[in-house]
Amino acid sequence: MTAFRDDGAVTLDWVASYLEGVRERPVLSRVDPGEIRAALPPAPPDEPEPFSAVLRDLDEVLMPGITHWQSPRFFAYFATTSSEPNVLAELLIAGLNQVGILWRTSPALQELEEVTLDWLAQLFGLPPGLHGHIEDTASTSTLVALAAARAARPGARVVVCSEHAHSSVDKAAKLLELELRKIPGDEEFRLRPDCLDLEDACAAVATIGTTSSTSVDPVPEIADRCDAAGVWLHVDAAYAGAAAVCPELRDRFAGWERADSIVVNPHKWLGVSTDCSTLWTRKADVFRDCFSLVPEYLRVADEVASLSEFTQVLGRRFRALKLWAVLRCYGRSGLQERIREHLRLAASFEEWVRADSAWEVVAPRPFSVVCFRLRGSDDENAALLERVNATGEIFISHTRLAGRYVLRLAIGSFRTTEDDVRLAWDVLRREGAAG
Amino acid sequence: MTAFRDDGAVTLDWVASYLEGVRERPVLSRVDPGEIRAALPPAPPDEPEPFSAVLRDLDEVLMPGITHWQSPRFFAYFATTSSEPNVLAELLIAGLNQVGILWRTSPALQELEEVTLDWLAQLFGLPPGLHGHIEDTASTSTLVALAAARAARPGARVVVCSEHAHSSVDKAAKLLELELRKIPGDEEFRLRPDCLDLEDACAAVATIGTTSSTSVDPVPEIADRCDAAGVWLHVDAAYAGAAAVCPELRDRFAGWERADSIVVNPHKWLGVSTDCSTLWTRKADVFRDCFSLVPEYLRVADEVASLSEFTQVLGRRFRALKLWAVLRCYGRSGLQERIREHLRLAASFEEWVRADSAWEVVAPRPFSVVCFRLRGSDDENAALLERVNATGEIFISHTRLAGRYVLRLAIGSFRTTEDDVRLAWDVLRREGAAG
Repeated sequence: MTAFRDDGAVTLDWVASYLEGVRERPVLSRVDPGEIRAALPPAPPDEPEPFSAVLRDLDEVLMPGITHWQSPRFFAYFATTSSEPNVLAELLIAGLNQVGILWRTSPALQELEEVTLDWLAQLFGLPPGLHGHIEDTASTSTLVALAAARAARPGARVVVCSEHAHSSVDKAAKLLELELRKIPGDEEFRLRPDCLDLEDACAAVATIGTTSSTSVDPVPEIADRCDAAGVWLHVDAAYAGAAAVCPELRDRFAGWERADSIVVNPHKWLGVSTDCSTLWTRKADVFRDCFSLVPEYLRVADEVASLSEFTQVLGRRFRALKLWAVLRCYGRSGLQERIREHLRLAASFEEWVRADSAWEVVAPRPFSVVCFRLRGSDDENAALLERVNATGEIFISHTRLAGRYVLRLAIGSFRTTEDDVRLAWDVLRREGAAG
Repeated sequence: MTAFRDDGAVTLDWVASYLEGVRERPVLSRVDPGEIRAALPPAPPDEPEPFSAVLRDLDEVLMPGITHWQSPRFFAYFATTSSEPNVLAELLIAGLNQVGILWRTSPALQELEEVTLDWLAQLFGLPPGLHGHIEDTASTSTLVALAAARAARPGARVVVCSEHAHSSVDKAAKLLELELRKIPGDEEFRLRPDCLDLEDACAAVATIGTTSSTSVDPVPEIADRCDAAGVWLHVDAAYAGAAAVCPELRDRFAGWERADSIVVNPHKWLGVSTDCSTLWTRKADVFRDCFSLVPEYLRVADEVASLSEFTQVLGRRFRALKLWAVLRCYGRSGLQERIREHLRLAASFEEWVRADSAWEVVAPRPFSVVCFRLRGSDDENAALLERVNATGEIFISHTRLAGRYVLRLAIGSFRTTEDDVRLAWDVLRREGAAG
């Protein structure tokens, strides 16, 4: 283990230095397609190389191809944080390499996953008694939730959601061979309950914090309709769910406690790295009926249901350990503090945009994402986005709302400061004026 | 970052010491169901705690609930290794926290994943030109492969496999609403091609290294039949595929180059931790037609197909980095050496069993898993398994073959030595005699 300890010290220093200096790196990678591939040998090595060669090539070959999701100036998509306790927990997870197949293959993995999901439900103000587990991404969480919904209502083959629902709903419906019925959004990009046609539906998906504009669907009305029709309600709060740690923001989550399934991604806004998508249900039995299948070589007398009986995948990583480490090292107050700061920064940015007549805000801002644009054509805004991202100073993304090309500034990194947001506004104004 | 560096040094030492001492720990956790949960607080902390509190509770609360997959004396299921380069690569992965959605969100992630999959295909002697990507587990690899197969042959709703195929085939067929037609195995637990009825089939699954006995289905005959019938052939080599790095073992893989899709899990026998399941296809277009769906907020002018267009899940971890680190630090020769040593150890163990008239070997041994039993009743063998695992000295698992309860000794940890295998045999004989 001498080599491991030595290589480990160097690697740890690499990570610490990287995080210390990441603010100064161009956020969006500047390589061309194929450039990284061309810089790598076409054939694998025959003989062992030292780990130092891996670190050398990481620096020399791969780093130009890294888009810095950990930069405090990453404002695209949904900004994320691999927080320090998360990084160290991943080191522990790798060392232990638990494979959660059955309870007995790692009682600590399974029970910590159950407990941390209970903790998180409490932090979010969700009702007690939900069954929770961790999936890799919301794509999987929504897939298995809709599979459970399909099983719960045989013959009903329609999923209903708003036009602003995430593409994972489309992908899940396609894999499950369910028809997707998309309901128009209102002028604030919320699902219109008056358009909610639940005929032949097995599930409705309501989103709290849509991907484009972070709009909030009217969950109480949707829940009423689902109740009346006997239709499964899946709530996608993948991004925004983290904000429920703040009691003063709970109004945005009204009705989600009535959902049959809820997905929140702590790997988006809660300091945990990909992969950590949390899924709760009040219908654990439906999930178990849908997914439980224990072959002989896994049959033991434990008489404890394994988490693999509630989802598609058999083996699971010890992801609960990183969620646990983050919940411990930030605590309720630390997480609230960061969410509140992000909303404050987003409110400031929104004010700056509103105060400048060359710009406009184009959607309400329930959370920490501002949708805005330069007053001008779609092409001008698209060109502006390219210019801004080419500077490397910040990275933002775009969407299309009400037919218009829209810029998005997403605040979500624990390491983002007011200065970073000010810089973003400076870069945008500078490049906007240069167009 | 001072705290991070200090906490990191302690965490690194924890992992190094753990791996140094793991041989001495009782392999299978001895806690009762609910014991870990009861030792954890029912509510999350309100205030931040230092990382040292996480490490303290890992030791005091969680470690009794760990089953030591990293023990060199773990011989259950398929033994695995989180090798040293893999552990350090996971630290880097966590620090970088790349989220592979589109090519541009991490060109290095995508291109390294493509290159390492090419490297691995070369190491395995697979033909050039396959499209490869990484999934979390074989459950997902087989699911997406069968979804592609379903799309490739509309209306054909049957999947054919042997009775010894992995339960992930059952789960995938269930989610995809395909009928599963199970073909009997022969006396050596191989699919019987004369029973292969491909009527209405969209896919056949052939297994190289079945979970129970590591038997090898007759892939060339199955491929002939699939070719003739226009049926997709999926080869599941999740465990055994790693052995293809050794040219002298390639006879077991005859015909797999004809498959439409192949899954191998480097996280089983190739020094990489869960999650690293590699999937290749020669029909990338079918996968892309099946899974590509790019919403507006992800539409950019890169003109490079993203890996997410070939599978169900949108976001991916930088898993290629750990696979790359392991391939670099072991090289072809290092991996061959370990596979060969495991086969040698398994052959020795098999000989010891054969030489003792109280025991019998009950299946051919193409790889590093020995299926054996005490000459006696099923109940005696089941009781023996319990006694052996209760000692904590080793951990083995069981299966059922030809109606009989069978013990399995699976050699697969890079850290297992001949002494560990001798100990296993000593423990088995001692406990067998005590029955």
